[in-house]
Amino acid sequence: MSLAGTYDTANVFGKILRGEIPCARIFEDDLVLAIMDAFPQTRGHTLVIPKGVEARNLLDLPASMVGAYFQRVQYVAQAVTTALAPDGLRIMQFNGTAAGQTVFHLHVHILPIYSDTRIAGHGETKADMGTLQALATQIAAALRPLSA
Amino acid sequence: MSLAGTYDTANVFGKILRGEIPCARIFEDDLVLAIMDAFPQTRGHTLVIPKGVEARNLLDLPASMVGAYFQRVQYVAQAVTTALAPDGLRIMQFNGTAAGQTVFHLHVHILPIYSDTRIAGHGETKADMGTLQALATQIAAALRPLSA
Repeated sequence: MSLAGTYDTANVFGKILRGEIPCARIFEDDLVLAIMDAFPQTRGHTLVIPKGVEARNLLDLPASMVGAYFQRVQYVAQAVTTALAPDGLRIMQFNGTAAGQTVFHLHVHILPIYSDTRIAGHGETKADMGTLQALATQIAAALRPLSA
Repeated sequence: MSLAGTYDTANVFGKILRGEIPCARIFEDDLVLAIMDAFPQTRGHTLVIPKGVEARNLLDLPASMVGAYFQRVQYVAQAVTTALAPDGLRIMQFNGTAAGQTVFHLHVHILPIYSDTRIAGHGETKADMGTLQALATQIAAALRPLSA
């Protein structure tokens, strides 16, 4: 597969998972960390990152881990929707530079869409941590008990 | 939630699942149907559609069904990658008209990306069934045993 490669532990999400870089945290358990994207394309742009696995992309993730990972993606997506009431919601996951991937630790984007607001380019504008932390708190307050 | 709504059984994927409309089938089991998108944005544009559930979008899908669904998304995505060797692969799932959703039965897009080929607009060009069927056969041949 042309998308194969070696996991590089120096990637930014690896650093966040190890606590070497701060983040605005929505949710964390043994399997995932959900945080605000530091370069949000819309208000509430969220990332769900798997823990305890060196997976560059979705093709790399052991099949046995896929289910619990995406249950948590849905779980956080529901909270984003409840908290921010967007007009729509995109779930996106990029594999490979050609597909738009810039950090080579698997992550899923949860992108709220607002009919009256443009979607910023990837990496266009860095948000300030206070704004992100307030959003994370607002979304976390909308989490319901995790089933399954 | 602004994204809530009533499932309409007359949607095109409902019709495909009931055999009322033909499709170019890659894979089917009790839980999903994987087919070629009839309006491919790139060569090999694939859809994975859950069966036996009236879910408009990911927010609607019972949490207990999310894991097996996305295991099959990964499974088909790996076969698309093996069969077509794209430079990248995007996984996309749209919730609500504002997010780009046009058919209101939950589906995940698997979009191969080729560095030298533009991505067509959503619904831009309908492919002929012979071409789609040949791609479906090629991708199906690359499926490995489905683990759980």
